[in-house]
Amino acid sequence: MTRPAGDLAHIGHAELLTPTAEESLRFFVDLFGMEVEASEGQSVFLRGFGDYGRYSLKLTEAPLPGLGHVAIRAWDQASLERRVGAIEAGGRGEGWIDGDVGHGPAYRFTDPDGHRFELYYEQERYQPPPRLRPALKNVPQRFTGRGAAVKRLDHVNLLATDVAANRRFATEQLGYRLYERIELDDGSEAGAWLSLSIAAHELIYVADAHAAGGRLHHLAFWVDGRDELLRAADFLLDADVPIEAAPSKHAVANGYFLYVFEPGGNRVEVTSGGYFVYDPEFEPIVWTEAERARGQAWGVRTVESFHTYGTPDVSGKANGPPIPPTSAIPVRGRVLPDGVD
Amino acid sequence: MTRPAGDLAHIGHAELLTPTAEESLRFFVDLFGMEVEASEGQSVFLRGFGDYGRYSLKLTEAPLPGLGHVAIRAWDQASLERRVGAIEAGGRGEGWIDGDVGHGPAYRFTDPDGHRFELYYEQERYQPPPRLRPALKNVPQRFTGRGAAVKRLDHVNLLATDVAANRRFATEQLGYRLYERIELDDGSEAGAWLSLSIAAHELIYVADAHAAGGRLHHLAFWVDGRDELLRAADFLLDADVPIEAAPSKHAVANGYFLYVFEPGGNRVEVTSGGYFVYDPEFEPIVWTEAERARGQAWGVRTVESFHTYGTPDVSGKANGPPIPPTSAIPVRGRVLPDGVD
Amino acid sequence: MTRPAGDLAHIGHAELLTPTAEESLRFFVDLFGMEVEASEGQSVFLRGFGDYGRYSLKLTEAPLPGLGHVAIRAWDQASLERRVGAIEAGGRGEGWIDGDVGHGPAYRFTDPDGHRFELYYEQERYQPPPRLRPALKNVPQRFTGRGAAVKRLDHVNLLATDVAANRRFATEQLGYRLYERIELDDGSEAGAWLSLSIAAHELIYVADAHAAGGRLHHLAFWVDGRDELLRAADFLLDADVPIEAAPSKHAVANGYFLYVFEPGGNRVEVTSGGYFVYDPEFEPIVWTEAERARGQAWGVRTVESFHTYGTPDVSGKANGPPIPPTSAIPVRGRVLPDGVD
Amino acid sequence: MTRPAGDLAHIGHAELLTPTAEESLRFFVDLFGMEVEASEGQSVFLRGFGDYGRYSLKLTEAPLPGLGHVAIRAWDQASLERRVGAIEAGGRGEGWIDGDVGHGPAYRFTDPDGHRFELYYEQERYQPPPRLRPALKNVPQRFTGRGAAVKRLDHVNLLATDVAANRRFATEQLGYRLYERIELDDGSEAGAWLSLSIAAHELIYVADAHAAGGRLHHLAFWVDGRDELLRAADFLLDADVPIEAAPSKHAVANGYFLYVFEPGGNRVEVTSGGYFVYDPEFEPIVWTEAERARGQAWGVRTVESFHTYGTPDVSGKANGPPIPPTSAIPVRGRVLPDGVD
Repeated sequence: MTRPAGDLAHIGHAELLTPTAEESLRFFVDLFGMEVEASEGQSVFLRGFGDYGRYSLKLTEAPLPGLGHVAIRAWDQASLERRVGAIEAGGRGEGWIDGDVGHGPAYRFTDPDGHRFELYYEQERYQPPPRLRPALKNVPQRFTGRGAAVKRLDHVNLLATDVAANRRFATEQLGYRLYERIELDDGSEAGAWLSLSIAAHELIYVADAHAAGGRLHHLAFWVDGRDELLRAADFLLDADVPIEAAPSKHAVANGYFLYVFEPGGNRVEVTSGGYFVYDPEFEPIVWTEAERARGQAWGVRTVESFHTYGTPDVSGKANGPPIPPTSAIPVRGRVLPDGVD
Repeated sequence: MTRPAGDLAHIGHAELLTPTAEESLRFFVDLFGMEVEASEGQSVFLRGFGDYGRYSLKLTEAPLPGLGHVAIRAWDQASLERRVGAIEAGGRGEGWIDGDVGHGPAYRFTDPDGHRFELYYEQERYQPPPRLRPALKNVPQRFTGRGAAVKRLDHVNLLATDVAANRRFATEQLGYRLYERIELDDGSEAGAWLSLSIAAHELIYVADAHAAGGRLHHLAFWVDGRDELLRAADFLLDADVPIEAAPSKHAVANGYFLYVFEPGGNRVEVTSGGYFVYDPEFEPIVWTEAERARGQAWGVRTVESFHTYGTPDVSGKANGPPIPPTSAIPVRGRVLPDGVD
Repeated sequence: MTRPAGDLAHIGHAELLTPTAEESLRFFVDLFGMEVEASEGQSVFLRGFGDYGRYSLKLTEAPLPGLGHVAIRAWDQASLERRVGAIEAGGRGEGWIDGDVGHGPAYRFTDPDGHRFELYYEQERYQPPPRLRPALKNVPQRFTGRGAAVKRLDHVNLLATDVAANRRFATEQLGYRLYERIELDDGSEAGAWLSLSIAAHELIYVADAHAAGGRLHHLAFWVDGRDELLRAADFLLDADVPIEAAPSKHAVANGYFLYVFEPGGNRVEVTSGGYFVYDPEFEPIVWTEAERARGQAWGVRTVESFHTYGTPDVSGKANGPPIPPTSAIPVRGRVLPDGVD
Repeated sequence: MTRPAGDLAHIGHAELLTPTAEESLRFFVDLFGMEVEASEGQSVFLRGFGDYGRYSLKLTEAPLPGLGHVAIRAWDQASLERRVGAIEAGGRGEGWIDGDVGHGPAYRFTDPDGHRFELYYEQERYQPPPRLRPALKNVPQRFTGRGAAVKRLDHVNLLATDVAANRRFATEQLGYRLYERIELDDGSEAGAWLSLSIAAHELIYVADAHAAGGRLHHLAFWVDGRDELLRAADFLLDADVPIEAAPSKHAVANGYFLYVFEPGGNRVEVTSGGYFVYDPEFEPIVWTEAERARGQAWGVRTVESFHTYGTPDVSGKANGPPIPPTSAIPVRGRVLPDGVD
């Protein structure tokens, strides 16, 4: 087990593609409580109240939903160049771009499944306008408390045809630490939880039910405390947002979750909790099929769409996210309908 | 709509029957955090830290699990006698008993489904021993914070072959207010939420899938705040308690819930939340089959055992509470096992 | 101890006077998260998301801040007339008015300290416009989650030159139950906590340090859970709202509190917690001077302004609420400044 | 700003001295909810439910309370030797010891103020006995939920006559990152918040009002969520534990706090919250005297003892922790006693 923070510090931002740009923007601003920091071309740059950089979400209009790219910040210029050298040697490099809103030159590459990544170092620090100046000098922005009021991008979960190959790429070429993984009875790998820090997960790969390549499972945004997830669920329910999975606790990584679909069809999570890995000799947790069949931490069974849906959708069904099914429990005679107290 | 608090004040205690007296006692003391206030014969009398009376749970050894009786306290002696007169006139009365630990003479009767009730007025106020004296003079007992640390009995949920008949008995003869109910498409009543106070539910009837009579759905114990339910779920999981339904929020009555089985096989709930009914003209909420089919407040689907299991169990299956099923989601090829992040 | 809910049901709304109408309106809408339900003359009518009536706060422009009136709803017309008769007989009646936005005829009177009250029965139920329709049919309005996001008016705290006289008026003429009170060493009464329901306080009288008459200590608005108070404190701090007392827990009545000043100079509270009084024989808690000198529940000392400031301000100091003092702890040599971790 | 995790990983444990060994042990077991993992000589080794190692607190009987030592674990053997070399060169080294319960050889040294530290690498991983086996394989121990139920040692706060000298030693010789500090108007440094990870503080130095050397301000133990602090305050209040500072939020480092005294006289904290430092270019926050005079995050004024008391006590007053003062607010005439709602 290598120590965390080799050359790369953290995911600075992720780019999300949406076919319904205006509705998605309204979602992230009005319902997730993010602020618009900049706009350029087909993209809007959004921040949570705790982001030290200018933004952590780049929202870009596109024909189909899905992931644009994941941008990882290096610890310094030398670290950046070292990682670029390794990636180039591995043959997955695409070359440098001049930079983007808020950050300097970035090196593009893809992971084995075809998701686009960028590495960069130079970055502008956020300067709040007067209306967003905080009362305390050690926080970057005023807490506006709007809707789910997410603090920052927390982790990125990517679908992959070959989880093991992508997991190896992340650990060997990017310096991620592997904290947890799922190994099925046939020996194949169904999920890998990776981090650059002591936080239990920052990058996740889970098996794609369709061999499509480059698909997104979800982006997760942080809130401070599990109570915030319950509040967000009340709020999002009343805002007519489709809830895929109500607040509960994951077995893997111990995170609290709430999964919803934003209007573009992408799955997004409000997350909190998890654990810290302080142990220099930490051995990755390996979950078996039987263990995972027990459901989430408190026994909640995962909804089926969670295993099958990603963006862009390749199911051949009508566009858009899955509609949560109504109860299949028979309601007749003396059998109670779903949900009786 | 009549005003609350006609003649009866609240459910003072409930008696729970258990075939595994010692294990059930350990459950309520060690895991639910209650205190033993007294013992007599086959019964132990247990209290939550917020009970003003000596106890709110009478735990009695018996061949089968289920409800012993529900004891309701009247506002005063005259009110008690008025209610007894009404019940006697209705033909469901059984007569007076001398009293029990902590309370005076009580009048016994059964509801139309055959559950035993008692009405009483005279009651001893709790006097904490030195080790349980609280710091603040306006609370009855020290907060020991053990396990789920329930505060008091909150509500009783009874199965009934004919919900409407029992609901009418509760409103007409006992003075309960009806706050919510479920009406199926065939016009039958599947559930009724009743209260003597502004709290949204104190007594509930739900349809029994088996026409057995007198069965218990669950007893619910209060905690102050939904955060306590999440904590209790972590604690009870690690204590090997079977969790039937993980913490979430009911649509009906808006209560937060956590359902588990105590060792005797009875379902017990840790509850919080709900709403207050301040409106003198409040009209009972009526839920249709289609509305209830949407699941709980945030869309969580109720587990099937919740609709079929009660105590005593009459399903003909092996004794004991239902074992929560493992995932039925197929785990093969590229389909993820249940619970991937 | 009489049973609760004699003739009166609950405080339907309170009228708050403000010399800075526009700023106060922005405060209650943008920071407390209330909705404007109506406007008329110099008044705006505001509601919390949980109010079953159209509003619970009437905000009225006036030269000085303070209380306009407190309006209490009766259980029915006969109850209303019974209370009016009693008040008229007591000589404090002022006569009927035709009604106001959302409610019918009301009878005006003053308590012994000169605060204006109204009693009424007929009231319109709230009908949400499309943008505020909730997902669940048993709640009156969508949860918009804006700022402190208060649910409803919870209680009213009035200053009184003679607490005992006003307490007696409330219990004898209005039917309030007395749950707690403070009795000083000289036998005088410094505070009385009163309720029409099982909730621990709905109307409070505390001693006025100035014999001005008719002054307001604060209006309190409910949130579901103590976690909401901590969130509100973060939000209000960043919104530049003067915080008089940070979130903590009262010894008296066990309520969680957060006290701030709205722009008009009135003290307002965000509150949760407290206890329920189920005991028909409940004896009021009496606190001595020595007991109250121990501070709030966890030992927090109350800020001095809490004992001296009310609206309208009669201290002779500059208008406006007291500015929370900076630390008086000497900072020199090796003595640490206030607040070191 | 150097990247975190140079050679040292985290504080593995701290040793606390107590003159009342039995009472202190009961405190940490019964009230803080820790488990006894081992005993040896005058010491007992205690763990929180989230400690991956065998313990994080070594409790040792001694004539006076205070700090025994702080033990920091290195990332690997080479890192350990590199740090030892640096410390030896700096002249503060004391030499190697063979190890202690649960860990291998350790190198002893003192910081400039005279606090004893140890560095080590080899460590045993915790193996729970059957009664403490958790339900989930990615947590080290069952959650017993007893009392404050602390998860692990979080940070150590040390008093120092010369904060700047100790801060430099920690950053230069141990590789700590400096995240926040207080600089008084005279240019002297009153506090420094240091970390080896992205967590906002793991080691803190604050100015000692007495030039005694080697004194302890407090040890802090983590709980997951600010709601746990409020619960702990209720529990500890009823357990007769002296509360120095009720739950609130620090301005510096944004941590939630609850400060109490354990029976030996040492100050201990229950903590949660704080922020993560993901920025590779993070500039330490510098607080001025005027800024700190505004109190804690929500304006709460720090109690005076927090600035003056440490262990061992050198104030010349009677032994034992300071008794929280009762209110000095005059209670006479119309002035209300402390704490009126």
